[in-house]
Amino acid sequence: VYLGDTARFPYGTKSPETVIRYARSCAQLLLCRGVKLIVVACNTASAHALAILQDELEVPVLGVIEPGARAAADATRNGRVGVIGTEGTIGSRQYETQLRVCREDLNIFCRACPLFVPLAEEGWTTGTVPEEAARAYLQPLLDERIDTLLLGCTHYPILANTIQRIVGKDVVIVDSAVSTASEVELLVDAMDAKGEPLGSEPAHTFLVSDSPERFVRVGSRLLGDAIGQVEWIDF
Amino acid sequence: VYLGDTARFPYGTKSPETVIRYARSCAQLLLCRGVKLIVVACNTASAHALAILQDELEVPVLGVIEPGARAAADATRNGRVGVIGTEGTIGSRQYETQLRVCREDLNIFCRACPLFVPLAEEGWTTGTVPEEAARAYLQPLLDERIDTLLLGCTHYPILANTIQRIVGKDVVIVDSAVSTASEVELLVDAMDAKGEPLGSEPAHTFLVSDSPERFVRVGSRLLGDAIGQVEWIDF
Repeated sequence: VYLGDTARFPYGTKSPETVIRYARSCAQLLLCRGVKLIVVACNTASAHALAILQDELEVPVLGVIEPGARAAADATRNGRVGVIGTEGTIGSRQYETQLRVCREDLNIFCRACPLFVPLAEEGWTTGTVPEEAARAYLQPLLDERIDTLLLGCTHYPILANTIQRIVGKDVVIVDSAVSTASEVELLVDAMDAKGEPLGSEPAHTFLVSDSPERFVRVGSRLLGDAIGQVEWIDF
Repeated sequence: VYLGDTARFPYGTKSPETVIRYARSCAQLLLCRGVKLIVVACNTASAHALAILQDELEVPVLGVIEPGARAAADATRNGRVGVIGTEGTIGSRQYETQLRVCREDLNIFCRACPLFVPLAEEGWTTGTVPEEAARAYLQPLLDERIDTLLLGCTHYPILANTIQRIVGKDVVIVDSAVSTASEVELLVDAMDAKGEPLGSEPAHTFLVSDSPERFVRVGSRLLGDAIGQVEWIDF
């Protein structure tokens, strides 16, 4: 059950208090749909609300920051890691905390890149505008000789080609999607083993809080043709 | 009484239905504060919700589109007018309707510029990124030989210098702020004359739906030092 809070999107510029409030309402809506596990698949929501949701909810709740941090800590050779994300994610300093849990001696350089989400939404993934924006945001990190760049926002992989061109081929780009998915798989297997199977038939339900039309248009840039029926829920 | 729905901002990408719902809740909140006149000072909200609010509310409600359209229709000499705004404003075609009310024979060329709001919010008002974005958005309008460009979004005047550089000095840039303010003044005078004065002592109240901190920081780029006490309201 995929829930996109498209009416109140983007979360990246909102205060922690507002993100927590919205994350709680999203979680409650998913619980009403009978989910047995929740993935907070938004870095900003993970940064501000994960601990609170884990504390308050009966079901397991996974975020994307810890898996992303682990992947970056594994990837770096010189111990100098760049992290980019929304204002909210970077302001929370959660990536720094989680990276240091993985490896105390890392040098971590963070930068909010507020234009990357609107650029991805606009579909401007290559060309002068995204390249010059990427150069402005990333040059300070390159000056710090990072060898690994962690994409701390779900939208940023859409800009990965442009980002890679700016940082050069020697910098490894890491995003948390794959490592988060692996963690979900492990947890699902564990729940299966404990006799709490999530259900045998895979099925997708898409819920959005604003008109499905724009979601399908923008979402298909990210997910290809995977989006089927979309249900409009009320926030 | 200024209300900024900063938690659910931006409106420009939301569907008409969601903007109408949010505009209604904003209007109700203002009415609870005892306002006697409402200005919908957001182009997207004006585009989708003005007629509905005018129909439903007891107090006069003014939008920004009609005054802006009038100013642009007055400014053009060759009858070729460009209009830029959010996806929602341009999609609504309200500016075209209002411009044609002013002058039936106008040639109107519209373009959504979704990156201008995030650029203004980021404070990137000059330099390569805003210039290249402006060139990409505005060149098709210049190819149509517009002589007037209507800034159909409250944020765009912050980018006016860059926009003027791209369109050239022969294109007149118009925004609706001054003509809307004149219309408000006329209406206030009329209400005064009818014995319904709004109150003699000018005072400002700022209400925002997300943390005041970011509002003060970004808002001071638009309003200078005019922002005093800010109250956090709940949406």
